[in-house]
Amino acid sequence: MAVTSSWVPADAKGDFSIHNLPFGIFSTGSDAPRAGVRIGDSIVDLKALSSDPAAAGLKFIQGSAANFAQPTLNAFAESGRATHKGVRAELQAILSDNDTLLKSNDALKQKVLVPVSQAKMHLPMQIGDYTDFYAGYNHAFKVGVLFRGPDNALQPNYTHIPVGYHGRSSSIVVSGTPIQRPRGQILPNPTAAEKVPITSACKRFDYELELAAFICKPTQLGDTVDVNEADEYIFGYVLLNDWSARDIQAWEYIPLGPFNGKNFGSTISPWIVTGDALEPFRTEALENKTAIQPYLQEAQKKNVYDINLQITINSKHTDGNIISETSAKNLLWSFPQMVAHHTFGGCNLRAGDMLGSGTISGTELRERGSLLEMTEGGKQDFEIGQGKVRRFLEDGDSVVMYGYCEKDGVRVGFGDCEGTILPAKAL
Amino acid sequence: MAVTSSWVPADAKGDFSIHNLPFGIFSTGSDAPRAGVRIGDSIVDLKALSSDPAAAGLKFIQGSAANFAQPTLNAFAESGRATHKGVRAELQAILSDNDTLLKSNDALKQKVLVPVSQAKMHLPMQIGDYTDFYAGYNHAFKVGVLFRGPDNALQPNYTHIPVGYHGRSSSIVVSGTPIQRPRGQILPNPTAAEKVPITSACKRFDYELELAAFICKPTQLGDTVDVNEADEYIFGYVLLNDWSARDIQAWEYIPLGPFNGKNFGSTISPWIVTGDALEPFRTEALENKTAIQPYLQEAQKKNVYDINLQITINSKHTDGNIISETSAKNLLWSFPQMVAHHTFGGCNLRAGDMLGSGTISGTELRERGSLLEMTEGGKQDFEIGQGKVRRFLEDGDSVVMYGYCEKDGVRVGFGDCEGTILPAKAL
Repeated sequence: MAVTSSWVPADAKGDFSIHNLPFGIFSTGSDAPRAGVRIGDSIVDLKALSSDPAAAGLKFIQGSAANFAQPTLNAFAESGRATHKGVRAELQAILSDNDTLLKSNDALKQKVLVPVSQAKMHLPMQIGDYTDFYAGYNHAFKVGVLFRGPDNALQPNYTHIPVGYHGRSSSIVVSGTPIQRPRGQILPNPTAAEKVPITSACKRFDYELELAAFICKPTQLGDTVDVNEADEYIFGYVLLNDWSARDIQAWEYIPLGPFNGKNFGSTISPWIVTGDALEPFRTEALENKTAIQPYLQEAQKKNVYDINLQITINSKHTDGNIISETSAKNLLWSFPQMVAHHTFGGCNLRAGDMLGSGTISGTELRERGSLLEMTEGGKQDFEIGQGKVRRFLEDGDSVVMYGYCEKDGVRVGFGDCEGTILPAKAL
Repeated sequence: MAVTSSWVPADAKGDFSIHNLPFGIFSTGSDAPRAGVRIGDSIVDLKALSSDPAAAGLKFIQGSAANFAQPTLNAFAESGRATHKGVRAELQAILSDNDTLLKSNDALKQKVLVPVSQAKMHLPMQIGDYTDFYAGYNHAFKVGVLFRGPDNALQPNYTHIPVGYHGRSSSIVVSGTPIQRPRGQILPNPTAAEKVPITSACKRFDYELELAAFICKPTQLGDTVDVNEADEYIFGYVLLNDWSARDIQAWEYIPLGPFNGKNFGSTISPWIVTGDALEPFRTEALENKTAIQPYLQEAQKKNVYDINLQITINSKHTDGNIISETSAKNLLWSFPQMVAHHTFGGCNLRAGDMLGSGTISGTELRERGSLLEMTEGGKQDFEIGQGKVRRFLEDGDSVVMYGYCEKDGVRVGFGDCEGTILPAKAL
């Protein structure tokens, strides 16, 4: 962490310091969506910068000009991690205190620095396939206890395989997009012997706190990614709220897994934080005492990131009403292990594919990543602040997820991942 | 079926008569992939035809010129069923015996009619999301009997919900693409109390006979498609082989569904047969005695198609070695019901999304859509012709699926859906 501070107003202890520089897609007014990098409360317009004569000496930035003009980051992602690193290094150079290329050129600054308040954020990637894993051990265990008791909480495969399933990519939306409460078939009396469903708005509407990775390097059908090379396939990370309709899911999911209980919407934070920015925050995942198969064995022991994750409902994390706080290190399987497993049978990856971690929870009540866990399956109230309680989400609720790493006075954050519940459509 | 025959050599009793006219994407030599329609052993090059001055009077064809030049049919599909109908009617007119526009113009014929033998077929659509349903009642029941016995063969939800799950779109390939046997974790002794997996090439490699629909009309997040309007959202149909690694799937699928057991590859036939071509072959689906929810109740009682489906291994359907033969009417749920259910919670559809039916089987041994069913879970040999038997697929096996409708001397077919098994990668 040699770089210290930027001439752009950006607190070194803020989420978007010069140590971070995450990539996103933004637009202003009626202009077309394009690539940008966040610093403080500004966005560096990469399309504008890369096409300006002043960028002549910035070879990675200039070389990415065509990609930065695209409405998604897929082409830039596919240009490879060496290019991402190069662009980031060039940006750190021109944004650092002692550089004048941009700092002293008012016309260029005017053209290239966009206030966040004037920008609309878009989905950063065109997502081909979305895969959701189940690597949050504490979540899987707690949910297992709720459904099957502590002796059979986890399936026999859980510690051998990064269990995952295919999700729905069409309904992934960017933070700030409202989410309509789904309708579906539910069992009015789930414990009754006779299973007769009704059609209803979801009554057990929940969130799930996850981290998600975007793939940058495609593979061919039949190829496998070595677990120790898998980091090269990951462009970066976002926060993910994998909204869940517990009652719809419970009735539909046997034997083929979740469907309408999940596919009505998933929310991601807009800024893709690179592995390079997260590198100083590496740590070890939860210990897996099972002897795992060779294709999943990693040389890198610090295989996850210690990202502080917070949830609030109807307030900001700064308001002090944090209902849950945990770390993204609470995973039994790392993203490289997920990538290795995903491709081990020959499934191909495309740039833009998204991999979710599964719900991340700690072991304590206020470290849980879903209401299901915090309310013992909807049987207990949970205080969400301001004198309010919830068992599941109500219409109008705004769920905010927030994440950051902090070490040695440096902070790298993700920003908010927010969604507000709209009422269900009439039946 | 007023139109009778074409001046292009195309047997009225052949798969690609003037009554069919399916859409696909083809290329010749080093030319870019583009849209075509199959008739007999020829392809009408729609890009060439639509951009020729001779097409001036063909308003639907000429109006689709930009879409026909695309490397996928997504844009054409999204132009809507009225346009598809219009193009098909104009093609039927100029291809019919008594029309001279193309028939008598040798230069235009030379430019527009491409021999199938000179063409390479491509995936017809860019597939956003792939959803696989489980609507083949006889398959679901038989598999349920194998796993749980006849009294608990079907889950309680089966007759209430068109059960489905999200599949992998990146690994969908066009007929003729080899499929590599997947590797993965399997249980060497599945019935042992202690579940300790090994890493291995799949030992229980199977096919699944399905029909798949392509979506043409997108929906917005939060919207629902009325079951009685769902046909307008379907561009057409292809055959689908949903290759399955039974041993990998068995170990991984609880609790979130199939993953690496399926995502290594799925094969589709190249020609999209429209609902217009299939209209004369409508029939009733299997009877569902359960009182289904209102959003799934259809006015149209003839809600599926009576498509004859055949499977051969290492031979062509014309060789007489058909190992299985059934009808696509063997579904408990229709495609309109699948579309209505898929969107009922608010999940959005995109043009190019693909919906699989689930494995289609009849009730008899030689009407089954997978080896799993025909070998009682891999416990009995099944004769595949030429003196050979199989329990599951061997390396080098070529599985051919084939489908056609026939009525009143008119035939509408899908052509072959073929895949040959390559050996697994070394461990």
